[in-house]
Amino acid sequence: MKKLINKVEDVIKEQMQGMAAAHPELKVNLEPKYILRSDSASQSKVVIISGGGSGHEPMHTGFVGKGMLDGACPGEIFTSPTPDQMYECAKASHNGKGVLFLVKNYTGDVMNFEMAAEMLNDEGIKTQNILIDDDVAVKDSLYTAGRRGVGTTVIMEKIVGAAAEAGYDLEQCAALATKINSYGRSMGMALTSCIVPAAGKPNFDIDDDEIEIGVGIHGEPGRKRIAMITCDEITSILTNAILDDEAYTRKIKEWDFDSNDWKEIELISPPFKKGDKMIALVNGMGSTPVSELYGVYRKMNEICENKGITITRKLVGSYMTALDMQGCSITLVKVDDEILKLWDKPVHAPGLRWGI
Amino acid sequence: MKKLINKVEDVIKEQMQGMAAAHPELKVNLEPKYILRSDSASQSKVVIISGGGSGHEPMHTGFVGKGMLDGACPGEIFTSPTPDQMYECAKASHNGKGVLFLVKNYTGDVMNFEMAAEMLNDEGIKTQNILIDDDVAVKDSLYTAGRRGVGTTVIMEKIVGAAAEAGYDLEQCAALATKINSYGRSMGMALTSCIVPAAGKPNFDIDDDEIEIGVGIHGEPGRKRIAMITCDEITSILTNAILDDEAYTRKIKEWDFDSNDWKEIELISPPFKKGDKMIALVNGMGSTPVSELYGVYRKMNEICENKGITITRKLVGSYMTALDMQGCSITLVKVDDEILKLWDKPVHAPGLRWGI
Repeated sequence: MKKLINKVEDVIKEQMQGMAAAHPELKVNLEPKYILRSDSASQSKVVIISGGGSGHEPMHTGFVGKGMLDGACPGEIFTSPTPDQMYECAKASHNGKGVLFLVKNYTGDVMNFEMAAEMLNDEGIKTQNILIDDDVAVKDSLYTAGRRGVGTTVIMEKIVGAAAEAGYDLEQCAALATKINSYGRSMGMALTSCIVPAAGKPNFDIDDDEIEIGVGIHGEPGRKRIAMITCDEITSILTNAILDDEAYTRKIKEWDFDSNDWKEIELISPPFKKGDKMIALVNGMGSTPVSELYGVYRKMNEICENKGITITRKLVGSYMTALDMQGCSITLVKVDDEILKLWDKPVHAPGLRWGI
Repeated sequence: MKKLINKVEDVIKEQMQGMAAAHPELKVNLEPKYILRSDSASQSKVVIISGGGSGHEPMHTGFVGKGMLDGACPGEIFTSPTPDQMYECAKASHNGKGVLFLVKNYTGDVMNFEMAAEMLNDEGIKTQNILIDDDVAVKDSLYTAGRRGVGTTVIMEKIVGAAAEAGYDLEQCAALATKINSYGRSMGMALTSCIVPAAGKPNFDIDDDEIEIGVGIHGEPGRKRIAMITCDEITSILTNAILDDEAYTRKIKEWDFDSNDWKEIELISPPFKKGDKMIALVNGMGSTPVSELYGVYRKMNEICENKGITITRKLVGSYMTALDMQGCSITLVKVDDEILKLWDKPVHAPGLRWGI
């Protein structure tokens, strides 16, 4: 294993120290681990916090900053952060306007964020959890009941961050985030595996002429393992899987502030249709040159145009990675005027910046 | 070879088409190949153009945009663009205020940009060439007489782009660019090789436990091949090589508008010293996770602090790549008030954006 690391057990800590040195506008806490906007607690706004296993950078730590996340809790690599990280992060940043947790649908993340939300609500700090489950590749997977949470997370963090900045209250932020989750769909693929430092060997085996269609961001299996095909063929499979996905209905949990307990609600993601306008994310898995992602963008855009779907905003780059995996994912999030207006607001985080 | 490409011969063309689809504010020309700001020819400002072999994206095509480059000419992968690309790119974008070519020191690039500059000056379009030769690793190399041009290019393109936007004339832009070249130093290293699509196999051989210190951005050999060491050890070698580099004196060519011919001038890069303030670029070679680059930043910043050198601005990410090579490079550019003020100006290019 050749990586730019020192001792395996110090990897996350030292990378966070590097972020602290590079970005003095962030507050980096090591025990327990979280990264905050230095000014969160002195603001008067809903606090937006996310987190998850490390290894997906710049998500989430790189998205902490004005107009996006207030805080992020990094777990060990590909491992959920613990409830005390989320609890302490929220305690250190909240300012009386409530806390919104944005949670990708992985069993450990969901369980731990729920525990943290319960602890905070018990103390009278109003906290709501929003699930992201946008991966059309598989229904259930290695670490998930239901669809996995992937690229829509990046789009949601940007837009809900802008909403909180603009003065949305907790209920409004939660409603917006839930809408974005119901508007977003993603699918990914892998050309290669990735190496987790603590393991020192590829996370899964894949032959030199094979690819994994529908892969998860930890290398978990997707829809099918097939022989290598062209960029256009890969892009067509991913894009069509997203555009042809039917209505997806599931039960999600929401905190009910009246009964002080969880309640289940039904959430439906309506299928995309002709005339829809989209934010697109063409995402690299870590080791994919940005030039190749533009090759993917070319074909994805062509397919969308042919189906009467318009890409109005886009990100092309490695925003949600799986360490050094080669591959890509495509995310499309349907937009309306509210979403578009918030997308265009300024953002200043290490991993995403404009307007400031 | 597994890459997100179609036919090898269409790679550059299709990636440019993807950029055109994603960035309607750019004008993408395929015969000959160049990318322009759509509004360049209607501006009244010095036109800043760069170019070089493809495979280093986002450099240079991703740096075309308001506040940075007006145009970029991509060659085939790791191959210089041709004089007609540079000539046509300049013809399509110039607006009477002159053209500045920013040229990395590789034999083919230098020769072809000189030919293009001669053609343009012969037609009365005032054109100046600026060399970037900032790589302290080696004196001469596989493709270079003198030091290679690497990371200072990114910093220069941002700052000189801002200067042109602010109304600097051709002579002032050229003087600023030359100053930045004399203020910049870089060194890189590789953990792995990279695969050029047309070759289909690694560009050079390197063992599983070896690294190349001082590698070039095409994988050309550097200072030494050594056994794998830690991130801190690698970072120390690169940072100290930059900080301990002595005065570097060389002859560079400049167009003399009086005699209408080239003249040679002597350029000296004074050594860095205690009290200097820097813009730092911690750059990934293509397949290095941004999290690992923060590990590099941590140690680099510590070494600089211990030597009384302050990092005042920074970029951490993959800005000048070598396809899918794993590795990193460090660039430090000494700043003064003029450079810092221009660095902070807005920029809006696909690969670098803030303030707009």
